[in-house]
Amino acid sequence: MSISIRDTCLQIQPLDPSVRLKAQARLARLTKPVGSLGRLEELAASYIAMTGELKPNIPRGTIFTFAADHGVTCEGISAYPREVTPQMVLNLLRGGAGVNVLARHAEVAVRIVDIGVDYEFTHAPGLIKRKIMRGTKNLSIEPAMTRDQAEEAIRVGIEMATEACKQGIGIIGTGEMGIGNTTPSAAITAVLTGRLVAEVTGRGTGIDESGHAHKIAVIQAALDLHRPNANDPVDVLSKVGGLEIGGLAGLMLGAAAARVPIVLDGFIAGAAALIAVALQPLCGQYLIASHQSVEQGHRAVLNHLGLRPLLDLDLRLGEGTGACLGIDLVFAAIKVYTEMATFDEAGVLEKA
Amino acid sequence: MSISIRDTCLQIQPLDPSVRLKAQARLARLTKPVGSLGRLEELAASYIAMTGELKPNIPRGTIFTFAADHGVTCEGISAYPREVTPQMVLNLLRGGAGVNVLARHAEVAVRIVDIGVDYEFTHAPGLIKRKIMRGTKNLSIEPAMTRDQAEEAIRVGIEMATEACKQGIGIIGTGEMGIGNTTPSAAITAVLTGRLVAEVTGRGTGIDESGHAHKIAVIQAALDLHRPNANDPVDVLSKVGGLEIGGLAGLMLGAAAARVPIVLDGFIAGAAALIAVALQPLCGQYLIASHQSVEQGHRAVLNHLGLRPLLDLDLRLGEGTGACLGIDLVFAAIKVYTEMATFDEAGVLEKA
Repeated sequence: MSISIRDTCLQIQPLDPSVRLKAQARLARLTKPVGSLGRLEELAASYIAMTGELKPNIPRGTIFTFAADHGVTCEGISAYPREVTPQMVLNLLRGGAGVNVLARHAEVAVRIVDIGVDYEFTHAPGLIKRKIMRGTKNLSIEPAMTRDQAEEAIRVGIEMATEACKQGIGIIGTGEMGIGNTTPSAAITAVLTGRLVAEVTGRGTGIDESGHAHKIAVIQAALDLHRPNANDPVDVLSKVGGLEIGGLAGLMLGAAAARVPIVLDGFIAGAAALIAVALQPLCGQYLIASHQSVEQGHRAVLNHLGLRPLLDLDLRLGEGTGACLGIDLVFAAIKVYTEMATFDEAGVLEKA
Repeated sequence: MSISIRDTCLQIQPLDPSVRLKAQARLARLTKPVGSLGRLEELAASYIAMTGELKPNIPRGTIFTFAADHGVTCEGISAYPREVTPQMVLNLLRGGAGVNVLARHAEVAVRIVDIGVDYEFTHAPGLIKRKIMRGTKNLSIEPAMTRDQAEEAIRVGIEMATEACKQGIGIIGTGEMGIGNTTPSAAITAVLTGRLVAEVTGRGTGIDESGHAHKIAVIQAALDLHRPNANDPVDVLSKVGGLEIGGLAGLMLGAAAARVPIVLDGFIAGAAALIAVALQPLCGQYLIASHQSVEQGHRAVLNHLGLRPLLDLDLRLGEGTGACLGIDLVFAAIKVYTEMATFDEAGVLEKA
């Protein structure tokens, strides 16, 4: 039975503001000046408002890292060859990539989903095989994928989140691996935020000055060719997107429908969030931005989503690395909320 | 046998730049674009340069939270009554304060040192009793302490660090509890950075507009009265400082002498760092700034020390809360360095 994108969107409920107020009331009774733990307090209140759990436990968490290839890499928009996508998938499965290390640090799991890598994995234990196609088409000359494929990518993401939440996962982080994927992310960002391509296009894994100018030209030409409809996020995704970006958008919708907070990684996650929020604005209420990426379009994305990142560590790796650090802070915030003594319990005088 | 401040300062060695280069060379071989883990990579390289360990393990860590009272509280410069200092010491010993929660999260220990609380603790298991006096004098009318007492406070801190490092502690975080202690911290900061009092004086735990103006006036009057000598940090500490600030300065010197990195908490730790670095500039090479505090003088402190904070979470609690989060990031950085696969190990192609 296939999951309907529309039904998932309809399941997403707005947050109940009274729950946040109750959480804030408890935070104000803890043995510290009111608000003195700053954004940790906001984060605890947000987590409680999203989940509705006024006595939260530390949830089990999972990072979903969607992997896919991009036809546009033949235009020379990335510093790394396309073969790196499957090589990194194997590295991720063996636990040697950055996200594996930081997920172990934060004590969350990593699941790797092949949603469109241009490689047939024969021996890849642990890999979730949901390949829709072997990489997108070259968006500079034709649509990256069909509308059906774009919807299928979103449904794969919804399914991943829905299954995980049924199994008791209480927080989800976004991750991705796909050589070339800052190009579709910049294209989506330009369309859905209305910014200029040059404003939202960065250097990805590390192209030089002329490579950067070329990347901007490729994206602009693609937008001029396809004229994606900003009011139709599936149209945008299919024409200039990526399979992992669709998967991530679906992941966000599925998690939000289950009242499970989603911690966004960097720029690619942000582009996926633009798609998800365009499909269902209420989804934005369940998003937590882990960090401010170096990738220049990320700031425009976060402004558009109204999210303030927790960390600013000059990260630009992706994979879900920043999401792991963000989840670690969510866990710290929940512990502050549940473990600190109140003024009454501790016999400490309150402010004069 | 008393520890000499001078001998400790002389033991502190400059970092060997070749060690940092070796660390950076390994970071460049890990399966990620060079530098794409941003400040985590810098942090790993700094940790290795400080300790000299090219194959580091995750060290055992301890937060030292020095508690003391301040005579200047009778001038009404704090939102909380003085009795809160001993009440919070008991809360800290029972594990109910913010720093206890975040230290458990980061898996580090918390040690509480009574270096000058105006209260005789009878039943206080776990408290390290090194009281020098029952709170400082009111610095607005007389020196906060004698020169001997200031030196003794520094020696207590050196001793704490030296003992901990002998017992195998490999990273130290700073913490403090002392109602009123943003006032001496602002005074020290004004003297040692040359900034105006109004520029470096904030609202502490939450005084109002008129209380803030009064606090600035009290500090300015104290500086006009005592004229502390900016070239003599012990003179500054004795006239307008605090016992916990002296303890923290000593802690930094003792840790640096043992090549153990020190993770600074917020503004009070910063004022102590100004004292430590004035005594021995090389000490600054062993400092890591965990976060940017809301307290307005903190920015001036970090600029003066040339430190960039890791986190900006609007914290203003103190106790060592931010230091715990900073240590958590240091641990993450060490794991990135030691656990990630290299390009060779993973069979991943490098940048074209």
